[in-house]
Amino acid sequence: MSALQNRQVVLKSRPVGIPQADHFEIRAAPVRDIQEGEFLVRNLYLSVEPAMRGWVNAASNYSRPVGVGEVMRAFTVGRVVQSRNADYPEGAVVMGLLGWQEYAVTDGSPVRRVVKETDLPLSLSLGVLGLNGITAYFGLTAVGQPQAGDTVVVSTAAGAVGSLVGQLAKLQGCRTVGIAGGELKRRLCLEEFGYDAAIDYRQPNLEASLAAACPDGVDVYFDNTSGHISDTVIRHINRRARIVICGTASIPNWEPWPQGPRVDRHLLNKSARMEGFLAFDYENRYEEAIDFLAPLVRSGQLRYREEILEGIEAAPGSIADLYEGKNLGKRLIRLTED
Amino acid sequence: MSALQNRQVVLKSRPVGIPQADHFEIRAAPVRDIQEGEFLVRNLYLSVEPAMRGWVNAASNYSRPVGVGEVMRAFTVGRVVQSRNADYPEGAVVMGLLGWQEYAVTDGSPVRRVVKETDLPLSLSLGVLGLNGITAYFGLTAVGQPQAGDTVVVSTAAGAVGSLVGQLAKLQGCRTVGIAGGELKRRLCLEEFGYDAAIDYRQPNLEASLAAACPDGVDVYFDNTSGHISDTVIRHINRRARIVICGTASIPNWEPWPQGPRVDRHLLNKSARMEGFLAFDYENRYEEAIDFLAPLVRSGQLRYREEILEGIEAAPGSIADLYEGKNLGKRLIRLTED
Repeated sequence: MSALQNRQVVLKSRPVGIPQADHFEIRAAPVRDIQEGEFLVRNLYLSVEPAMRGWVNAASNYSRPVGVGEVMRAFTVGRVVQSRNADYPEGAVVMGLLGWQEYAVTDGSPVRRVVKETDLPLSLSLGVLGLNGITAYFGLTAVGQPQAGDTVVVSTAAGAVGSLVGQLAKLQGCRTVGIAGGELKRRLCLEEFGYDAAIDYRQPNLEASLAAACPDGVDVYFDNTSGHISDTVIRHINRRARIVICGTASIPNWEPWPQGPRVDRHLLNKSARMEGFLAFDYENRYEEAIDFLAPLVRSGQLRYREEILEGIEAAPGSIADLYEGKNLGKRLIRLTED
Repeated sequence: MSALQNRQVVLKSRPVGIPQADHFEIRAAPVRDIQEGEFLVRNLYLSVEPAMRGWVNAASNYSRPVGVGEVMRAFTVGRVVQSRNADYPEGAVVMGLLGWQEYAVTDGSPVRRVVKETDLPLSLSLGVLGLNGITAYFGLTAVGQPQAGDTVVVSTAAGAVGSLVGQLAKLQGCRTVGIAGGELKRRLCLEEFGYDAAIDYRQPNLEASLAAACPDGVDVYFDNTSGHISDTVIRHINRRARIVICGTASIPNWEPWPQGPRVDRHLLNKSARMEGFLAFDYENRYEEAIDFLAPLVRSGQLRYREEILEGIEAAPGSIADLYEGKNLGKRLIRLTED
């Protein structure tokens, strides 16, 4: 095994704002031998996600920033190809924080789950049956707590998380209103993800469009954007509304910290709640989400999109245009045919 | 009874911002005869509170604005002096929205409770055993949900609500940190209301003082101010923190809507929650709060301050200087000796 070479994407310099291709470099390193208790994973797919911006920025965030010179933190799905750990036998498929690299030697601590639903494409364990699905499921059900008949508004409504939130809310009997950028995504919201109404925020009169789409006000707002879109939606919340903070995609940089209309008076006037969450908060309940979502995927009730880039060379530049709204669906990098 | 004259404080013009004495006028009107199902209340005390600003402003709020020419909406405590309603017999003491006036004829719908704890001063049913106590109790316990060992920060910490929040949190085993304006109030926090630490926000270096007072971060922030104080506290919240929005006293005017640092990223990074509430949300649970608070008042474990103005002539000018931080304790207007 000592001849086995591992290509890795490492952080070359710390970005301010959105990480670009030249903040990373690809290096080759030999794969070391596994020790007792360890196993070797060959990564099949690497994940690309907006949260990576936060993982590499120095500003306050929910996890330690990736160090310069370190392999880029990333979720991957891979297959165990050598093992000296009985919990992860050769052939097992694992999903976890195994990094932007071809191989990972691990004792299992970064592994988030062993993939059970191997009848489905393994890439799904990074998307609808991975962090995206888990995020949508707990963000909506545990934080947003929608009731049948509620109006649920979703920003980045055609995105990898938002599209699932809209569909799950619809399955719960809610009226769903999607906000997305551009006519293509607006139509995807309506035609593929079943929203009752969809708004292109790039068109003028977002406020009027939102009011028309939400004649009974907004009970749950699942927010991935912050900024102008959120400022507009909060003016339409109902009493006891729940605003779920999942992401802040419209804010390119938090240094200096941006200003916006104060939200506290809205929350006070409406006895409403704004709450942030991370999928990590529900780490011991992941299987509950997967067990709920996998049957919906199998039956075709839950739709999803993937956008698959080929080869590790695609990784360094893959974060930046997520923030330009160019991608459709969950972005992945395929390293090898399964 | 037709000879009985009622003096009433009516809204003369609609203020923008903080209501001043000349936004009101006092008029005399005869007390009308009561009908079947009605009763006549003689008000003993009128309440004065910061929320009155919102009640008379045209801007979005949680209740219909008081109309120009109408009696000023206010909580009062009074005694039933004539009754044709068996639920409210002559002699009963009632607390409710009976307005800034000497007498009220009512069918009972504005009454919030019949005062049971008549062994205690009746004025308390507008303060520690009234909306202040109810607000502190539910805001802290139901929204803030403190656990023993938590650090609880309170703004307007020496005020009629804040001082109770601090004491209730302390009784629950929390570390309590009060923020108040001026050295006198800071000392009241420490010496009368038992805060573990107190900060005068008018001194420089609020941020450093707060960090020193909260070495383990902030788990619950009970906010009555909004603005700069809140912006500072939120930078020190812990994971899963709860920010209770009870008031926005530092913001004189919401037209135009003020800007501030965006909070959503703080809430996301810390999986934290910001939630507004009104005492009205808990209207069917008021007695639960009073039953908890009254024994603590009787035993002297719960301390409170009252600031009593004499006579209805004091009412028109009584709101404005609440916003200048001049008052110490719950402000009331006494109309008659009980």
